[in-house]
Amino acid sequence: MELPSKLLEKAVSEISQLPGIGKRTALRLALHLLKQPEDQTQMLSNALTSLRENVKYCKSCYNISDNEICEICSNPNRDESIICVVEDVRDVMAIESTGIFNGLYHVLGGKINPIEGIGPSQLNISTLVDKINLGEVREIIFALSSTMEGDTTNFYIYKQIKDSKIKTSTIARGIAVGDELEYADEVTLGRSLINRIPYENGLKI
Amino acid sequence: MELPSKLLEKAVSEISQLPGIGKRTALRLALHLLKQPEDQTQMLSNALTSLRENVKYCKSCYNISDNEICEICSNPNRDESIICVVEDVRDVMAIESTGIFNGLYHVLGGKINPIEGIGPSQLNISTLVDKINLGEVREIIFALSSTMEGDTTNFYIYKQIKDSKIKTSTIARGIAVGDELEYADEVTLGRSLINRIPYENGLKI
Repeated sequence: MELPSKLLEKAVSEISQLPGIGKRTALRLALHLLKQPEDQTQMLSNALTSLRENVKYCKSCYNISDNEICEICSNPNRDESIICVVEDVRDVMAIESTGIFNGLYHVLGGKINPIEGIGPSQLNISTLVDKINLGEVREIIFALSSTMEGDTTNFYIYKQIKDSKIKTSTIARGIAVGDELEYADEVTLGRSLINRIPYENGLKI
Repeated sequence: MELPSKLLEKAVSEISQLPGIGKRTALRLALHLLKQPEDQTQMLSNALTSLRENVKYCKSCYNISDNEICEICSNPNRDESIICVVEDVRDVMAIESTGIFNGLYHVLGGKINPIEGIGPSQLNISTLVDKINLGEVREIIFALSSTMEGDTTNFYIYKQIKDSKIKTSTIARGIAVGDELEYADEVTLGRSLINRIPYENGLKI
């Protein structure tokens, strides 16, 4: 694909660095911006720069925040003795939207992934261990995705904190609500049989 | 979806103004940029601003160009007497990649679309008519997409130039090369029957 202008080429090449956006989509987006008023591009580009330059992370849980301590960590109504360990900000948002969880979070910022060169030291793991060693946490819930990297990260953290003898759990894996059994994969179905839950007068939730 | 930070909210809202990008994708892109080195965001945002501020359009055909007159219009080997009328820059690139066409282009910058408030005066139509009135153009090829807006635009231009008695044509509509007949829609199949081409010792291309 030969572009008629160096400026356009540069913009397309930068846009296509974004995940899931190829050269063609990048070109479509660049041409779209050219058809819009100039201040739309200016606002987009300012918003991106300002996000990248001024973003703050909560000093306690590493969630993105406008303040030193995020709204969740500073909320006196939340239970500080339960910490849910998640990979990134989107997971916090997903769990918050259930309205079920009333504890605090700890955002790792990724999962241990040797192939991509991400080791434990690049994640917010040591601060989690420090937090637990203070002795005020009663339970840790691992809510990482159930991939090899997620399981490795769970296990790495578990080894670091198992001496503290606090309760550790992981979110349940099973058939999604509304899903048909016949389409479930064997591993999920198998796990949902092993981890079956008592049924009396219906489920609790 | 409640975001934990105003900066992030602003960035997500700006990114999701782009066509085909919803709030979720916008959030994924914003979080991706946060994980990358700061200069990647800086380069993206500079490339966008600089494209929007400094983009030039060829004074003859309105293709995007780095110079006053684009490389195609200034190429002495191209046939100036045939002009292919297209909607935007991507169409020029698509036709150029076939290697079949050796004339010049005229980029309209859109199609007549009353619903979106785009009338003939917002498109580069009058300059095309002026070009034809100079008397050096022998043929006009309409290569707009075959939608109602495309057909309207073709017809509008045709009415403006029909007195000049130059040859006008439109690109052939028919079954795409490699496509199965049974999956073609009736209109396309019908048109390809009406506009059938002589077959002797195989097709020419």
